[in-house]
Amino acid sequence: MRASDPTGLHRVLDEAVVLPQAAQRLDTRKELWPDEVRIRVERLNLDAASFRQLELKHQHDGDAVRREVLEIVASRGKMQNPETGSGGMLVGTVEEVGPESPLGLRAGDRVATLVSLTLTPLVIEDGLARWDGKSEQVPADGYAVLFGRSIAAVIPDDLPSELSLAVMDVCGAPAMTKRIVEQYAQTQPGAVVAVIGGAGKSGSLSLAAAKDAGARRTIGVVPFEQERALLAEAHVADEVVIADARDPIAVRDAVTAAGGPADVTVVCVDVPGCEGGAILATAERGTVIFFSMATSFSAAALGAEGLAADVRMLVGNGYTPGHAAYALELLRADAGVRGLFERRL
Amino acid sequence: MRASDPTGLHRVLDEAVVLPQAAQRLDTRKELWPDEVRIRVERLNLDAASFRQLELKHQHDGDAVRREVLEIVASRGKMQNPETGSGGMLVGTVEEVGPESPLGLRAGDRVATLVSLTLTPLVIEDGLARWDGKSEQVPADGYAVLFGRSIAAVIPDDLPSELSLAVMDVCGAPAMTKRIVEQYAQTQPGAVVAVIGGAGKSGSLSLAAAKDAGARRTIGVVPFEQERALLAEAHVADEVVIADARDPIAVRDAVTAAGGPADVTVVCVDVPGCEGGAILATAERGTVIFFSMATSFSAAALGAEGLAADVRMLVGNGYTPGHAAYALELLRADAGVRGLFERRL
Repeated sequence: MRASDPTGLHRVLDEAVVLPQAAQRLDTRKELWPDEVRIRVERLNLDAASFRQLELKHQHDGDAVRREVLEIVASRGKMQNPETGSGGMLVGTVEEVGPESPLGLRAGDRVATLVSLTLTPLVIEDGLARWDGKSEQVPADGYAVLFGRSIAAVIPDDLPSELSLAVMDVCGAPAMTKRIVEQYAQTQPGAVVAVIGGAGKSGSLSLAAAKDAGARRTIGVVPFEQERALLAEAHVADEVVIADARDPIAVRDAVTAAGGPADVTVVCVDVPGCEGGAILATAERGTVIFFSMATSFSAAALGAEGLAADVRMLVGNGYTPGHAAYALELLRADAGVRGLFERRL
Repeated sequence: MRASDPTGLHRVLDEAVVLPQAAQRLDTRKELWPDEVRIRVERLNLDAASFRQLELKHQHDGDAVRREVLEIVASRGKMQNPETGSGGMLVGTVEEVGPESPLGLRAGDRVATLVSLTLTPLVIEDGLARWDGKSEQVPADGYAVLFGRSIAAVIPDDLPSELSLAVMDVCGAPAMTKRIVEQYAQTQPGAVVAVIGGAGKSGSLSLAAAKDAGARRTIGVVPFEQERALLAEAHVADEVVIADARDPIAVRDAVTAAGGPADVTVVCVDVPGCEGGAILATAERGTVIFFSMATSFSAAALGAEGLAADVRMLVGNGYTPGHAAYALELLRADAGVRGLFERRL
């Protein structure tokens, strides 16, 4: 038997040496290596870009979507959409903890995994019989395995678990926004922060985080009037403007009119083609944080070069220490953010 | 006639409002808008990832590669590989300057364009008859158009133009590396910098830039012995180690053994699958700069999350003010770097 590696390398079945996220297929055996944890799965939460791609591909035929998800998980030993490359997260109960696990979990803990499904060994045992294939929230029975270097957060008692799960799913965005906006606050009178997709889950939390971190002005960019009204009523942003995120000139003009260009622009919409608008809405020497899995690396790199735009572009990292606790704290403290989340459950 | 926009929006023929880089098709009319410049093309320099994809697709059949490049340029009005999304750059002579052009060019200047071919209106007039389809350097006759916000650099007299062109093609990498490494030098005793693909063009310049910017130790990562010997003889890096960039554990172990983990890791190899190794070779709170067009956004984002790696990941931006002049200066000052470049011409 291979020795375990904290990255989960020992579960990779591919010929080449690749990390679990890049692997075609993972070993889903139920028996644990000494540093692993097994979770009894209760629900999967598919990544929004992944679910949207499946829905479009199958023309909203829920049975076909369900069949494809089952097929992916059975053949790859993990849930990773082959088109978008993305996965999602899961919630469940700790079933067994290996004697050398460093994660601090105990059997019976109800947890959400904060590493992607794209690298989590997963077995579905109920054929997803309780899921209609029409929502990214997937009730499921089965098991999943966490490695030594995985991350899982115990679900708090004071919030409905569906709400906690939705918050944890996007908790990387507010934590990273906070860190970047705080850096600006050290050297100037606070950043102007624009969040594209400001009325969404990661977007509204990022707006709240920007304010919390000392932003001078926050601007939420939304696609149409209904979302504008929602976000304005929630009082989460200083300004709310309407623009199609895929229309670079519209985004630039809307953000500029609302007090931009932005020192920090956060992209939180899960549609392709938002790179140009984000770059054009950002001031010289400003920062763009791409949190959408629909971001194209080459569109961002070549877009900035093609616009002679001296902006710093960050790949949104889903992990920052303390990210889940921080996002839950923002939600508890801000009734507006909480309202936006509850509408989307 | 549409009014011109510095971004080149007026040349986009798509139905939707998109920037030239995202457009399916550009208007290649020869007549200039007032802020444009027309260049008589002398040579195209295809992006390495793009050329490699075409070469593999056509199994090294140069005629087939040439036909596909001609077809792409004719149908899209620009050279943008539909698979990789990338283009390249070009060299030529200024033919006409619009009365309102802000670029400071004069008719007769020999220039290299430093914006990507993916957004540059281009017409090829000689059927690429002088190109055998077997090298990314493409002799060509035709014309190209620069917008108000484009970038072009006059080719210096003191260096062979092929050499200058090769340097300018990758000049974004050393400029950005310098900026990031200098930031580390402000707060600690200088960064440990690892460059994956250190013997290549952008890689060797990035190593030289890191040293110039105050790096404490530079580590070049190369794939095999021949490149190790080359880079070691050039004295461009403090340490040279061998590892397959696609093997994350090998990269981690090699960089660690050479004095890592790195505070700054620069990825300069144009093969897919290098995200995991770069992340694992980087210290907590360190920075990864992705300069390869083969980088996958989702592999980077999910890879870091999956490894619980608190690293900052930057999309390599091909534009930093003064980047061409800086890269040429590094080459002039460092015989080792110059030797590595000359070997590759």
